[in-house]
Order: sequence, then structure tokens, then C-alpha cells
Amino acid sequence: MIDFAPFYQRIAKDRLQNWLHVLPAQLYAWMNEQRHGDFPRWQRALAKFAGLQAQSIELKQSVTLGRADEISEGERRKLENLLQQLHPWRKGPYDLFGIHIDTEWRSDWKWDRLIPHISPLKGRHVLDVGCGSGYHMWRMLGEEARLVVGIDPSALFLCQFTAIHQLAGRPEDIFFLPLGIEALPKLEAFDTVFSMGVLYHRPSPIDHLLQLRDQLRDGGELVLETLIIDGGANDVLVPPDRYAQMRNVWFIPSAAALSIWLEKCGFDHIRIVDESVTTVEEQRRTPWMRNDSLAEFLDPTDSTLTIEGHPAPKRAVIIATRRADG
Amino acid sequence: MIDFAPFYQRIAKDRLQNWLHVLPAQLYAWMNEQRHGDFPRWQRALAKFAGLQAQSIELKQSVTLGRADEISEGERRKLENLLQQLHPWRKGPYDLFGIHIDTEWRSDWKWDRLIPHISPLKGRHVLDVGCGSGYHMWRMLGEEARLVVGIDPSALFLCQFTAIHQLAGRPEDIFFLPLGIEALPKLEAFDTVFSMGVLYHRPSPIDHLLQLRDQLRDGGELVLETLIIDGGANDVLVPPDRYAQMRNVWFIPSAAALSIWLEKCGFDHIRIVDESVTTVEEQRRTPWMRNDSLAEFLDPTDSTLTIEGHPAPKRAVIIATRRADG
Amino acid sequence: MIDFAPFYQRIAKDRLQNWLHVLPAQLYAWMNEQRHGDFPRWQRALAKFAGLQAQSIELKQSVTLGRADEISEGERRKLENLLQQLHPWRKGPYDLFGIHIDTEWRSDWKWDRLIPHISPLKGRHVLDVGCGSGYHMWRMLGEEARLVVGIDPSALFLCQFTAIHQLAGRPEDIFFLPLGIEALPKLEAFDTVFSMGVLYHRPSPIDHLLQLRDQLRDGGELVLETLIIDGGANDVLVPPDRYAQMRNVWFIPSAAALSIWLEKCGFDHIRIVDESVTTVEEQRRTPWMRNDSLAEFLDPTDSTLTIEGHPAPKRAVIIATRRADG
Amino acid sequence: MIDFAPFYQRIAKDRLQNWLHVLPAQLYAWMNEQRHGDFPRWQRALAKFAGLQAQSIELKQSVTLGRADEISEGERRKLENLLQQLHPWRKGPYDLFGIHIDTEWRSDWKWDRLIPHISPLKGRHVLDVGCGSGYHMWRMLGEEARLVVGIDPSALFLCQFTAIHQLAGRPEDIFFLPLGIEALPKLEAFDTVFSMGVLYHRPSPIDHLLQLRDQLRDGGELVLETLIIDGGANDVLVPPDRYAQMRNVWFIPSAAALSIWLEKCGFDHIRIVDESVTTVEEQRRTPWMRNDSLAEFLDPTDSTLTIEGHPAPKRAVIIATRRADG
Repeated sequence: MIDFAPFYQRIAKDRLQNWLHVLPAQLYAWMNEQRHGDFPRWQRALAKFAGLQAQSIELKQSVTLGRADEISEGERRKLENLLQQLHPWRKGPYDLFGIHIDTEWRSDWKWDRLIPHISPLKGRHVLDVGCGSGYHMWRMLGEEARLVVGIDPSALFLCQFTAIHQLAGRPEDIFFLPLGIEALPKLEAFDTVFSMGVLYHRPSPIDHLLQLRDQLRDGGELVLETLIIDGGANDVLVPPDRYAQMRNVWFIPSAAALSIWLEKCGFDHIRIVDESVTTVEEQRRTPWMRNDSLAEFLDPTDSTLTIEGHPAPKRAVIIATRRADG
Repeated sequence: MIDFAPFYQRIAKDRLQNWLHVLPAQLYAWMNEQRHGDFPRWQRALAKFAGLQAQSIELKQSVTLGRADEISEGERRKLENLLQQLHPWRKGPYDLFGIHIDTEWRSDWKWDRLIPHISPLKGRHVLDVGCGSGYHMWRMLGEEARLVVGIDPSALFLCQFTAIHQLAGRPEDIFFLPLGIEALPKLEAFDTVFSMGVLYHRPSPIDHLLQLRDQLRDGGELVLETLIIDGGANDVLVPPDRYAQMRNVWFIPSAAALSIWLEKCGFDHIRIVDESVTTVEEQRRTPWMRNDSLAEFLDPTDSTLTIEGHPAPKRAVIIATRRADG
Repeated sequence: MIDFAPFYQRIAKDRLQNWLHVLPAQLYAWMNEQRHGDFPRWQRALAKFAGLQAQSIELKQSVTLGRADEISEGERRKLENLLQQLHPWRKGPYDLFGIHIDTEWRSDWKWDRLIPHISPLKGRHVLDVGCGSGYHMWRMLGEEARLVVGIDPSALFLCQFTAIHQLAGRPEDIFFLPLGIEALPKLEAFDTVFSMGVLYHRPSPIDHLLQLRDQLRDGGELVLETLIIDGGANDVLVPPDRYAQMRNVWFIPSAAALSIWLEKCGFDHIRIVDESVTTVEEQRRTPWMRNDSLAEFLDPTDSTLTIEGHPAPKRAVIIATRRADG
Repeated sequence: MIDFAPFYQRIAKDRLQNWLHVLPAQLYAWMNEQRHGDFPRWQRALAKFAGLQAQSIELKQSVTLGRADEISEGERRKLENLLQQLHPWRKGPYDLFGIHIDTEWRSDWKWDRLIPHISPLKGRHVLDVGCGSGYHMWRMLGEEARLVVGIDPSALFLCQFTAIHQLAGRPEDIFFLPLGIEALPKLEAFDTVFSMGVLYHRPSPIDHLLQLRDQLRDGGELVLETLIIDGGANDVLVPPDRYAQMRNVWFIPSAAALSIWLEKCGFDHIRIVDESVTTVEEQRRTPWMRNDSLAEFLDPTDSTLTIEGHPAPKRAVIIATRRADG
């Protein structure tokens, strides 16, 4: 079911064709090397509804594939059970044949905050770095992007994406590749690159920004969303140990500091278009994500602080353009 | 002009798709590494008639692209001059808009000798190993092969093929890749593999046979043409120095010995379908190959011997089938 | 003259022996690939005094090789001329047969500031990352380190080091390897690692600290010197463009911020042992470094600022220990 | 116990020093990759007598390490039991503290046949390709070779060699490396190269001869032993299936044909110094090699034929010298 051949065919004569010099070898190695131990189980679950395809698809206001009346109640129970095998679902929500996958994150809220500010995606080549299960990729398709590519090294997220992709009838203008951005060559070919919720996980935020720049054509647009702190041009939090229970949090700059980093990395037209404190309504435990979530990571006596005493999560969306000389 | 993207697109969903795991990286390296010093000059010559395309094409009885009256006399002189820049032309002949490229070899005679004996090529995936300028590839296409792939590491032959390919309107079922067979992965996907005039140039004929086998599907057909000597199962000539002035001649077995090698390498249904002494009418100096040819390589007093005293060139065509367990 | 074989022999049975799995291949590639265009000229200069060897060597208080009376005045003029061909000399000073190489930096002052604070080097395996011409390496040897290894990717610095090494009689407990630290495997074998004047040149200071840690045995000591700004735990300067005319300056943290980074990267016992504003007496133009130096990089009207308006260079020496679980 | 560091140290300043560019990486990979499933068991056996070292060593007339009276009867029984865990022992015999390892082959007979004909080994760098347990390596050391290197990809043979090497006190002028010859770079550094019992196992005998040549200095000596058939310059047996039950037998030339191959591969002074039919006294089943041996591989009714009807094994020793232009 997981098959990258359609992507290779899609890009062979496209502006992404240079990717073929490295990508098939990388994905072939990925498929042959040790992956998550649950990968075969997930693949079996996918196989069980490989033939099921939605007649109606709505991507503009939500990600809704299939009306409830397209399948029987028994089929729905079976599908729901299979989708539960791909637990935990973090980014969403999805509506599939009447099943509501209530994910940890209300990713639609994030989308609503940024969509008024970005260049219209219609007709564009779009890359989503750290795409998770691919929720925003479907919304990008809903905005009529010409080609949507999401990358994320997680095998689970690949399977979640593939589940949705199967139900959507395997459209060939949206693709998930199980890669980290450091595996990408300098493509300089995308019109818009998204990096949302990734930067603070990188030990080298500068290298991350340079890698994002290298995927954009001159004048292409970066949509960057990450944790920030309040403060001025020189304010940067590096938590000495954990942040909101996460071990892998490195740099949390102020929006002003982040703007300087972007300038240094070859961007201009840098605008902060949104700053929001993350709420326990936006990120929380659900039947589809049964582990601890934000409420458990905040100081129980002061929700402006994490359990470690750092400022509670605040996020900014920053939009910038690749400079011609960047 | 030289562009492998159409081939990648062609095979992405084809039975050759595994080739994508290595091929684009190899060809990208080939294009970037040191090539023949004349390569830029040849490419410039190709560019000068990139827009010229034959209206009539005949590949069944000959390789004839364009009638004389499709272009003016001035265009013909210019085209002939450009084609001469790709000297020497070894395999042919070609008829191009009334220009007759009289090549060193009458490769059409070889084709006529083997075509009655091989499985019909119609609908087949065909590989031509050591394809030279690609003359036989066009004849394979004339026989309605579904896909014809020729490989040869020579940059000149790539340019000669590209010249013809341009004139033919760049059809997408015939491709030349500048590779030696040792660069191919185990594709096990071709219906017919040709190796003509290659085996005696290999220091390891066994490895060559194994590599040919590895490109065939079970039951696929090998068409092997090489130098032979007279003799029985254990007769093999290894010339201690040159053979017919060539430094790189290694093993010249008898047809019987060669049949045993094929059996050992996983073939059956092994038939010798033709044995011919090469004549100075079939291989000779022409205006399109102005260097020494066979006449200069034979003993002037005894044409049954090479100038070094070895038996003069005799060639066999052997056909064999890949065993299922081979 | 440049020969890494003695190093390979030295470490083959040493705790650094795992380095042999990658190092000879790397240095072989380095020697064969494109290097600085002046490399052959520098090598010729080295060859011209390959036989000259100091009888007296003093490394404890200075780097003094050979007294003036060990060679004639003519030899001295010749040697001085050859050493000038290795211009510019940045780290020093060196006294060689009465020739005083007055380098851009008074690196001896830096040494004097840190030596009271570090663990005695006697008997230790020591690595100097970004060693330049190797001045501090000789001082480490003067402190009776058992083995001193310096790394720096610059071909000029290799040649400068080799010049001094030849004059010292090619001792086999001090080696220069033309590598950046990112080329090192995880050796976990050095007792002390120095990184002086490197961190602010790295786009990823965190990766630099992790790479330094990976070279230390458990409990080994890091001696880190870098640019700092005044400020608290969250203060970090990232100059948007140049800093003191240098294009490749990335992160300049406060000493407090840098301490947190070290803690996060697996160090403890973190002490700031020195903070000094760099003076135009310590870093300046000399006959052995005839390019612009610090005086030209400061605001002519306010020496507390760089020419770009950033705080003028201030440096800290921080000492830390690799945690057992780090 | 298996430790290649002494070899690296030995060659770091030797004429073999270029080997360091690839060898440590190869052996590191070998040690980390999948090896024979019994390797850990063999290593445990080796560890159990790691401290036992022979006081007397005789290598000139035999391989005799330790007299019977150097250890007790109980120690001998224990040692014999441990050595039996390294079954099967093919090349020998060895005499170890009164234990006689009666191997499948009387390799001493082969040695006796060739030693009068080769250049004296005293002071030479010697390579033994396909060295098996290393019996002949010890005899080379007995002839006072300066350095003896044996290569063989078998993990069992490495363990057998290591057992003997331990008992000999781990001398540092004899080394076993678990490699096939195709893994060697072009060293052009050995004075004598032995290849005995290897050529007929190679699908490409020419490449084998070229690889042997590439290890020799100009004028260095090749000692080649392989199966031959009777016949003239063009006689070569390629058994279509098995030969004496072995599946991996490819080319068995006549001595005359083999001489031509050697000439073609850059050798001169080519002499056939011995031809012998292998007897069931020289190769046979013993308590130390309890599998089928030659007697079982011959036609029971006609010992001049193998069980498949080929000529029974006949071997030649050929000596040749690398041509300066070879």
C-alpha cells in the first residue's frame, strides 16, 4: 500500500526532478531498515480497508471524507476500530464516514489563524516540514495547491496519512515522505514551505532555517510557527532540562530574536502575524490521544508556568520571503 | 538535450521501477564527472539541429528517418556536416533525410541473420547491452518492442544515439543510458536481453553472463553474439597479447564451450543459431569511419589469420533462456 | 614532510585506536582533494629548512626553539624569509633561533589567564579544537601533557605548525590534523579538550558543545573560551549581519546563558574563571600579520562598540567537566 | 583476543602504510556485521586458553608449538577439547604440546614440493591469499620472512589461526586478516604472494591474477597453485555443474593455458615447477576433519575420474615474476 512510485513519476519532469538523484535510494533504505516494531501491524490495519473510498470529499473548511450514509454501521465500527489501532492521533480533527477523530490538537484553529495572512496557495508547490499525520496538508490541498509534499520521519504518521489518503482515493497531488528535512537536497523549488511546531525541537535552529530556505525558490514564502517567549532582540530561553515535560526542547527565542535569525538566514519581508498562548482547549487528551497532554504539563497552581517553572507555551506564526541573494 | 527525466517517468510505475533506487544518482554523477573532452563540442552539434524532426520513419527494414525532400539541399549539407562531427560511426547504416551514413559495420546483416531465430519482440521489454550508437535498438523498435533500453558507457555513442533520437522526434519507448552492465542492479525484468560484440572484451565472461541473466525475468531470452573459435567443449583461446590489433580481447571460446558456460550460469534451451566468418565487406573503412578496419587487422598473406596469427574473426549467435532456478 | 603515519603508529594501541576506523581515509582524501592553491608553495618553503633542528627548546614559559647562536646570520635571514612566506601568523608569539614571530594575537596572555584554573595537564591526552598554528599546543606540551592533538581545517595552519614541528625535531607526542571537529567520531578518550575562539563561529553552538563532550572521557575537562555579552540566563546576541567585520559570527551568549547550554549538553562543575575585554594590545596588526586587526574593527569614536554598533569583544574562559551520564 | 591494532601499528611506517586508508574501516565493519553464528562460541573457546604459551617453537620442519612436558595431562585434555570445538581443521598438521592435529590435508607435503623452487623468503614481505587456518604462514615464518600476512574471509579460519597464534605468544610479524583479495587496494608492496587452492574457485580467474599482481612490487614473485587438466594452450575445463562435489569450481586450465593467462596479466619468468595428482593419502578424512573428503569425491570404480566423470584432481605449482610494465 505504501508506494512512492507515483511520487517519482509525478516529479520526473517537474521542477522537483533533481530530488530523484537521492530520494529513491533514501526511501528504499528506509523501507529496508529497522522501523518501528508496530509497523507491520499498522500496515495490516491499512490493508483491511484498502478498498474503501469516499464519494464525497470536503477540504476547504475541514477534512471530511465520506458521509455517514456511504457505509453501513458495521463497516463504520470496523473502520473506527482499525483507525484506533493507529493511536495516538495528534493533529486533526478528521471526519471520516461519520467517524469524528477528535485529535489532541485542534489543528484547524491554528490553520484559521494563519490562513488570512499567507499568500494564496492556489497553483503552488508546497512543502510541509514536520507534517505529522498530514492534517494541514489536506487543508493546503483544499486551498488548491498544485502539489503538496509533507515530510516527517515518523512511521506512525506515515501510516495515519496513508489511511486518510486511501479513503480519499489516493490523489496524486499530495504525498507523504518519511524523511527529516536534513535528508533533503537543496531543491530551491517550492513556492511555500511550512514549518510548524518543529523549530524548538532542533538543537540547531539556524541550520533548520537554512534548510527551509534551501527548499524555497527565490521569493518563495516561509510560514514558520514555533514556541516563543516574551522579550527583545537578545532574549532566548534554553531550558536546562525539560520544558513542559519534553526532553527535546532547545531554543525558544522571542519573536524579535527569531526575526533577526530569519534575516541572518536570508529572509526578508519578515512579519509576525499571530501570537497565541496555547490553551488546554486547543491541546488536550481525547479518546483518540489517551496520553498526558498540556493540562498535565502546566503548573497546577499557576497556568502561566510549565510544571518546570518556565513560561507556559506561547506560539507565534511568522511569515517571511526568501531573498534573491539569501 | 540529453535528459533522462522521461526515462524516470516512464519506469516509475513500470516493472523496472526498482532501477530508480540507483539509476538517477549514477547518471547525475556521470553528468557531473569528467567525461570525454569532446563532449561539449558534440553537444553543441546536437543543439544545432534540435528542432529538425523527420515526418516519415521506417524501422522495419532499415533505419530511415526523413525523406530527402523533407529538407532543402542547404539544410542537408549542414546536417551532414554536423553528423560528421560525431565521427567515427561504427554501427549502422542510417538513412537520414537522404543522407546515407555508411558505417564501419553492416549491422543490418547481423540483424538479418538473427531475426528469424529470436522470439518476436512485439510487446516486450528489451535491453541491449553494449548498444553502440543504437542501430539495433531502432530495429527492435521496428519489431514493436514495448520498451527498448540500450546501455553503453561511451559518451560519443550517447551523442550519436541522441542525434538520431532527436530526428525521430524523441520517442519515449527507446532510451540510451551511458552505463556499463556492471552498474545495473539485479532487475530480473527484461523479456529479451541482447549482448552483441561484448563478451570477448570482458576479463570475466562468467560475470558478464551472470549479469545478463540477472536482467532477465524467469524464462526471458538472451541473444548473445561473440567471437568464437572452432573446437570442442574445452577449447578456449586467450590471446597472450593483442587480437586483430585489439588490446582488450580476453576469452574466445568455442561455441561448445560457450554453451557449457551458459548452462553453468543458469540458462537452458541453448541454441547456436548462426556462425559466420566476418568479411571485409561487413566490417570496413568508410567515409563515416576513416580509421583502420578489418582489412588492416588480417594477415595480408592469409586472410584466415589475424595479423598476430590467431584464427580470423568468426562470430556465433547463441540464444538461451533463463532457467527458473538459474 | 607532512606525514600522518607517525600519528597512526602512536595511536594504534592507544585509547585513541578507534580513530583509525575513519581517520586515515579522511586524511588520504584531504591530501588528494583540492586544497588551498598556495599549498604547494608553502610545502616548498617547508622543504627548504627541513634539516634545521633546534638544540634548545623552551615551552614552559614561551615557545622558544633554538638560540640565536645556533645558526648564522645568513641562515637566520633565509629562515625568516621562508617563515614570512607562511604569512599571516595569527596565534603566537614564537621565538625561533632569535627570530621573534610577533603574531596578531598575544596568545601567551590568554594562556596565562587560564593556566592557573585548569587541571594540571601532566600525563594527560589533550585535544585542541581550532588550534590555529598550534601555539597553545606547544604550551600544553610544556605542561607535560602525554599526547597533544590539535585539529583545524586550515591548510595554512597545518604548514605553520609543520614549520615549528620540524624545527623542534618532529617530536611524536604532538600532532596537527587538518580536520574540523564535525569529522571526529565519538572518541570519549581525551582527558582535556580545549575549544578557544571557535564557538561563536558555529551556526550550531549546541552541536559544537555535544561534539566537544563526545571527545572527553567521563570526568574529562572542557576548557571553553568564546565571545560573551553581559546579561542573564536568557541573553544571547545573534548579530543580524557582521560582527567586528566578521561575516561568520552566529551566537554570542552571556556567560550565564552559556553555563546553561553546557549543563544541557552533559557537563557539570561549570565555572567561569575569566572574563576579559579584548584590547588592541592583545590583538593587533604586526609585521607578521599585515591585514586589518581589532583597532580597525571597533567604532573609532567609542571603543566599547564594534564598527557595527555591537558590544566590543569580551571573552570568557569557562571550565566544565563531562558528567558520567552526559 | 582478536585485535588488529598490532597490525596497524606494525604497518603505519612500513611500505604497507597505504593499507591504513581502507583496512581499519573494513575490519571494523567486519567485526560489527553479521558473522558466522558460531563465532561467539569459538571466541569463548579461545578465551579459555588465552594464557597458555609455548616455551619451544619449531617452524622450520613442521609447525610444533610446545613440548608435551610443558603442560599437564589434564591441561592437554582440556586444550584438545577446546581445539576440537574449532572443527573442521583442513590445513596442517599442527603439533601443540603433544597434541597432533591431523588435518584433512598434508599441507606439509605441498610445502615440501614447492620450497626448493621459490626465492628464499628470508627478509621478505609475504602475502598468503586464501590462507585457511594459516599452516603455510607459519612455515613462511620458519623461513624467516620479515612479515607474513594471510587473508581469508572465513571466521572459523581466523579463530583457528588465533588459537595457534596465542599458543605461539602472539608474535607480531605474522597476521591473519579476515578479507577476500578483492577487498585489497593496489598495494604493490609484497615481495612474494602465494595463492594456493584459490584460482579454480574464482568465477574470474583473470581478475584474480590481476589482483595478485597488484599486491606485488615490480619483480616480486607469485607462487600459484591450482587445479589443472592435461592439454595445450587452448585447453580449459569449465565443469557445467559440480566438480568433485564442489559447486563453486569454475575454470580448470591446462598448465600451458594458465601460463598464457599469467603472461597476459603482466607476469614473466613463468615456470611450472610441480604437477601432482592429489592422492587419498594427501587429502582425507581424519579425527580432526570428520566430513567427506577426496575418497568420497572420486569415481569408486575409476580413481582417475571424479564422481561426476571429470579428470580427477591434478595440481600444478607455477612460479612467475611481476613484470616492471605489468
